[in-house]
Amino acid sequence: MACALSTSFLPKLAKPDVPISCHLRGLGCQASLAPSVEHHQEAIGEQTKLRAGEKISIGVLGASGYTGSEIVRLLATHPCFKITLMTADRKAGQSLASVFPHLISQNLPNMVAVNDADFSKVDGVFCCLPHGTTQEIIAGLPSNLKVVDLSADFRLQDVKEYEEWYNRPHGAIELQKQAVYGLTELNRQAVIDARLVANPGCYPTSIQLPLAPLLEAKLISSESIIIDAKSGVSGAGRSAKESNLYTEISEGINAYGITKHRHVPEIEQGLSAAYASRVTVSFTPHLMPMSRGMQSTIYVQMADGVSIQDLHQHLSKRFQEEEFVIVLPKGVIPHTRNVRGSNYCHINVFEDRIAGRAIIMSVIDNLVKGASGQAIQNMNLMMDYEETAGLLQQPMFP
Amino acid sequence: MACALSTSFLPKLAKPDVPISCHLRGLGCQASLAPSVEHHQEAIGEQTKLRAGEKISIGVLGASGYTGSEIVRLLATHPCFKITLMTADRKAGQSLASVFPHLISQNLPNMVAVNDADFSKVDGVFCCLPHGTTQEIIAGLPSNLKVVDLSADFRLQDVKEYEEWYNRPHGAIELQKQAVYGLTELNRQAVIDARLVANPGCYPTSIQLPLAPLLEAKLISSESIIIDAKSGVSGAGRSAKESNLYTEISEGINAYGITKHRHVPEIEQGLSAAYASRVTVSFTPHLMPMSRGMQSTIYVQMADGVSIQDLHQHLSKRFQEEEFVIVLPKGVIPHTRNVRGSNYCHINVFEDRIAGRAIIMSVIDNLVKGASGQAIQNMNLMMDYEETAGLLQQPMFP
Amino acid sequence: MACALSTSFLPKLAKPDVPISCHLRGLGCQASLAPSVEHHQEAIGEQTKLRAGEKISIGVLGASGYTGSEIVRLLATHPCFKITLMTADRKAGQSLASVFPHLISQNLPNMVAVNDADFSKVDGVFCCLPHGTTQEIIAGLPSNLKVVDLSADFRLQDVKEYEEWYNRPHGAIELQKQAVYGLTELNRQAVIDARLVANPGCYPTSIQLPLAPLLEAKLISSESIIIDAKSGVSGAGRSAKESNLYTEISEGINAYGITKHRHVPEIEQGLSAAYASRVTVSFTPHLMPMSRGMQSTIYVQMADGVSIQDLHQHLSKRFQEEEFVIVLPKGVIPHTRNVRGSNYCHINVFEDRIAGRAIIMSVIDNLVKGASGQAIQNMNLMMDYEETAGLLQQPMFP
Amino acid sequence: MACALSTSFLPKLAKPDVPISCHLRGLGCQASLAPSVEHHQEAIGEQTKLRAGEKISIGVLGASGYTGSEIVRLLATHPCFKITLMTADRKAGQSLASVFPHLISQNLPNMVAVNDADFSKVDGVFCCLPHGTTQEIIAGLPSNLKVVDLSADFRLQDVKEYEEWYNRPHGAIELQKQAVYGLTELNRQAVIDARLVANPGCYPTSIQLPLAPLLEAKLISSESIIIDAKSGVSGAGRSAKESNLYTEISEGINAYGITKHRHVPEIEQGLSAAYASRVTVSFTPHLMPMSRGMQSTIYVQMADGVSIQDLHQHLSKRFQEEEFVIVLPKGVIPHTRNVRGSNYCHINVFEDRIAGRAIIMSVIDNLVKGASGQAIQNMNLMMDYEETAGLLQQPMFP
Repeated sequence: MACALSTSFLPKLAKPDVPISCHLRGLGCQASLAPSVEHHQEAIGEQTKLRAGEKISIGVLGASGYTGSEIVRLLATHPCFKITLMTADRKAGQSLASVFPHLISQNLPNMVAVNDADFSKVDGVFCCLPHGTTQEIIAGLPSNLKVVDLSADFRLQDVKEYEEWYNRPHGAIELQKQAVYGLTELNRQAVIDARLVANPGCYPTSIQLPLAPLLEAKLISSESIIIDAKSGVSGAGRSAKESNLYTEISEGINAYGITKHRHVPEIEQGLSAAYASRVTVSFTPHLMPMSRGMQSTIYVQMADGVSIQDLHQHLSKRFQEEEFVIVLPKGVIPHTRNVRGSNYCHINVFEDRIAGRAIIMSVIDNLVKGASGQAIQNMNLMMDYEETAGLLQQPMFP
Repeated sequence: MACALSTSFLPKLAKPDVPISCHLRGLGCQASLAPSVEHHQEAIGEQTKLRAGEKISIGVLGASGYTGSEIVRLLATHPCFKITLMTADRKAGQSLASVFPHLISQNLPNMVAVNDADFSKVDGVFCCLPHGTTQEIIAGLPSNLKVVDLSADFRLQDVKEYEEWYNRPHGAIELQKQAVYGLTELNRQAVIDARLVANPGCYPTSIQLPLAPLLEAKLISSESIIIDAKSGVSGAGRSAKESNLYTEISEGINAYGITKHRHVPEIEQGLSAAYASRVTVSFTPHLMPMSRGMQSTIYVQMADGVSIQDLHQHLSKRFQEEEFVIVLPKGVIPHTRNVRGSNYCHINVFEDRIAGRAIIMSVIDNLVKGASGQAIQNMNLMMDYEETAGLLQQPMFP
Repeated sequence: MACALSTSFLPKLAKPDVPISCHLRGLGCQASLAPSVEHHQEAIGEQTKLRAGEKISIGVLGASGYTGSEIVRLLATHPCFKITLMTADRKAGQSLASVFPHLISQNLPNMVAVNDADFSKVDGVFCCLPHGTTQEIIAGLPSNLKVVDLSADFRLQDVKEYEEWYNRPHGAIELQKQAVYGLTELNRQAVIDARLVANPGCYPTSIQLPLAPLLEAKLISSESIIIDAKSGVSGAGRSAKESNLYTEISEGINAYGITKHRHVPEIEQGLSAAYASRVTVSFTPHLMPMSRGMQSTIYVQMADGVSIQDLHQHLSKRFQEEEFVIVLPKGVIPHTRNVRGSNYCHINVFEDRIAGRAIIMSVIDNLVKGASGQAIQNMNLMMDYEETAGLLQQPMFP
Repeated sequence: MACALSTSFLPKLAKPDVPISCHLRGLGCQASLAPSVEHHQEAIGEQTKLRAGEKISIGVLGASGYTGSEIVRLLATHPCFKITLMTADRKAGQSLASVFPHLISQNLPNMVAVNDADFSKVDGVFCCLPHGTTQEIIAGLPSNLKVVDLSADFRLQDVKEYEEWYNRPHGAIELQKQAVYGLTELNRQAVIDARLVANPGCYPTSIQLPLAPLLEAKLISSESIIIDAKSGVSGAGRSAKESNLYTEISEGINAYGITKHRHVPEIEQGLSAAYASRVTVSFTPHLMPMSRGMQSTIYVQMADGVSIQDLHQHLSKRFQEEEFVIVLPKGVIPHTRNVRGSNYCHINVFEDRIAGRAIIMSVIDNLVKGASGQAIQNMNLMMDYEETAGLLQQPMFP
């Protein structure tokens, strides 16, 4: 088939009036949608056998946690993906609805233990397993499967850094070399070509989206980048911990993991690459009395002669074609509530009181753009579907 | 047009693998999705000129409140409806995003004053204006417009009862006679045929869904129906009131409007009709520290010889074909969190400690099934589209 | 000692202008707070050697939970009690501040294991251990110690009922006979004379305070008493459970323990005693997104010829001399926020829409009047001090 | 009178075993309650007639707001102060309980309009009126009254700066010269001698307490002091605003007043004085979904050769004698929950990831140490009573 696959995506000002259906990017027509059970990379190309209305089979490993259930929630209205496999070792044999009754209206298979999973029937896998358990499991998957891994296990390209911060040997060093870091807007082409995507952490997503372009353009200094971040509690997952009880979280705030949070090397890896030189940041996360939402308030020194207007203009231009990254009009303050439940990231920049400094704010939903939403965005690209498919649900406010 | 319109809807166990597109109910095929550019009211009838992908034009009156913004949020992914008109008298001339930044990615017209609105270009209208202002405005709309009114102004069939509870004369007595009460699952055929639907209140929705079928079947007594209801704060709207400040609501609970809440006559109207005899209920609403969500805990006396199993079976059967009303498996307790942001209602029944009594629980999102979601569900039917179109977004948890 | 001790207490309208200091009730010093009733005092040393300003030594068993820390919080400003012993088996050797940093300014001994505790140096003990572990431990304490037990282990007078509801044999049957049920306002004289007080549960406190007097006076029917109760999460304690995570509790409500909550037999025990006949209630607790606070909304049938005014008058009269139980003026709705952090209970009654029925509301802070505050109130009485000593901290709002 | 008044206060390690009664600082005995300063109200006046147990009469101007009600809450257990006058113009004639039912158990006079207030019967006044209305009112008070003003009207010593930030002329320029800035721990002697104290703002309190000593000792640089502050909503008061509705605040975070918050000049005034040179800070406040509590996370550059240990040691030494300022042990992270409802400030310092930088955190309850508690602390000193009187209520957690 001659139709070249386009990497372009829908510009924000020209949203389709028709619903996004299950069609391949660039194919232009809904009818030619192509089939076949043995679906892999080539299939979405020359022979394109997927027929109209037929869906890609998706597996979710670790479906009983919050990122897993969020994948299921979002895929419920996805035009092209269909969940046919879910694993959860401690809940094997149970329905997802017994664990997450909010998903009871879904027609889903029962969960199985990962060792009992039949991967021959799925085309792509979202891996929502805990950090540290994931490397071996992904290494054991059939090589034709597309994989988006939501754990931290493949995010750090430097294996030594991984071993230092995670205090354990890396379990899949060869696979690490293939892993593509899936911050979609900053790494789209590599994601399209990837077989294994390491889905970014929530803090790194909210921080790199505004900072990487500014560092790349040398509009800000790499010295004294100070990041005061605030996160909802869902980032800590669903496991029972005293410190995450309602009574311990409600009506208060506290910092945690000061200087030691494991997202630090991931943040610095991305910023250093953008700046083409080693960047060290100050990063202090705070736990907030909210389930979802994340704000990074970032204090930076502008480069000589650079103004707030320059920063705003550069970011606006950089993201103007992006559906999910919105640089707000001047003066409008980002609120986490305004992206809740959605895949959007809102960004703005403000002049600081100290001359030459700027304040950059970015907000996301930590479970969506900071985890499961971006994972689907990446899988859409890897499968050659519309990048926004299944992700245009609007933020829920109030 | 020969094609008889069906009142059937998608059974839950056979959800479509294809996305719901913009097609008319009963037309049988997605391909025949109708003709012609010049789409106006007649099109949705005999000559059905709507072409594939073409959308119906929708107006939202009172877009700057929570029910208005919720209509906009939900319609953003609706396959058939497109908002082309929004009014907000005090915000006339402004963009919706200036009032609700969470909707900034939408491509919408600016808001206008209702008196400046051009209704000739819209096919249907959601009226989200405050109680008391709505009767005159709707009476002045072109008669070809389909209207779903989210206020209380047309809910009470007995004009005298309206005047007694609302302490003002009714402003559109003739129109009242045409108004159809839009509790969709209980009144579907009338909604389909309606031009003006009075969308139910949130409490009445959560209460009538389980009670009306049980009263109709005489499975419960009409005596001593005690309803202890709990609501999120968004039901009070966005206007600034001391009693709805964060500091006044957070970390506490209180009853309000004891015996005097204006939803009482609406509840009793529906239950009396179902029971074919006057029903008086005890109804005590409580304000909860949550933005969305509503639970009605209903204490009833079962009829002689009736068991909990009978209630569960009757409700299960009554709603088995409904997408949005789910009778939970025995013993599973409804949580408001499990329907948050969605159009679902979860119901269950429990045996009481006092012999012969039962406890019925139902949960909804007060802004969706209790307001804007049900309004869209009704408009879908009035426009002859799939009832579930645009409403299959799953509940958001956590 | 000749000084006859009075059981009277300070009327609300004549609050002392002097601070409550560390004096025995009835000792005549500092305001001559009144005599009467013979009252032995062996527990506090045979010869009653306590001098003005000297404090009683108190032990807290199970200091690392919420009720334990609440005892410590409240005793920090108690004029007569001083904590000299704290136990916490899993935190033995640690300071309380390491577990509860909010108490860091207190000058307290480190916690020890209960088996290592030296009880010879304390005069009274608050037992904040989990249900089921308490009977044996209290049975092993020196018999001269005054004990207030905050667990459920001694609340049910009928050992068989205990064994049925708690599904385990009672471990201290003899001691059970001595245990006095410590709902202070309803059982004051027995508490004064007690050596071991079973401190009531939170729900039973909020329910019996208004209902027992009305049942005793036969002003309400014992049939169809329907209690819809709402509680903050702190009642569930500090142990890590998935269901009590912030993400699981915030922004939602759900019932739990329907018909099976272990407070049911305690409630029915008290109400049956008041009514002098078996009372069975409908009791449905709900979990609320708040840390503290409890509301019981109680739906009752009034006796023939009884009016709301009668109920209000009877309760007002019954509690007019009580510091901690306030019957609100007619029409004022109780809010849990208005008793937060305090030992107060607010009550009111409302006419129902169903003729002959009434709605009774009572609110408390589940950790204070529902647990640690009432425990101190009881210990004050047992030690012959002012009942209100250390408990006049006002509710914290907002 | 010969008895020299001491400015010393109770060291933390030697808390009194006796309750703090109504006695003057330094007099050593409870019986001799007695004065010094010229003071009307005969009891406290020339002939020293105040007897044990007699209380000072206090007025609260603006009692119907949150800082006013908080004064009332805290004074309820104050051993020496008694409220005999309350004003609230719009609620004149009403009881405080009608506005704040949580204070219903207090025996208080009804509120009057400020113009109708009889100031001849009070010894001290807390002024809780809105910014901008206070200058004229205080200027009109009898000159013998001690006044603590909780508004911002007298905080800025430079009248021009006041006029610039508040955009209005100063209404009491002469009085401004007498006003003492009441950050108690940093300005104690001046407070003792003051007649009019300008009670600090909440942000300035939380920021100056740790920063002023470090700047004074030149342990940190005055360049690039970056303050990311987080506040509960009660700081915004009780007036009805859309932006403070529960639905707008819950489950989210947002910055506000970026670079323009009126606490900036107050912060810089204090820090500049401590540093003896102009200091400009970056200050970004964030609104949190909590009613009470404030955290300032402060990012600073240490002076050459200075270590984290130096900062910790300096602050520990500086505050070791203070009851209300607690420098936490190394590594312990401050939580706002741990000071909730109390007059305590918790502080700690942490090494940053960027070499040479430190992170300083301080937490307070914005309504207590950040407003009404510190006001009482100041009034205690102005009246020559124990500084901690009425303020030893412990933080409420959970």
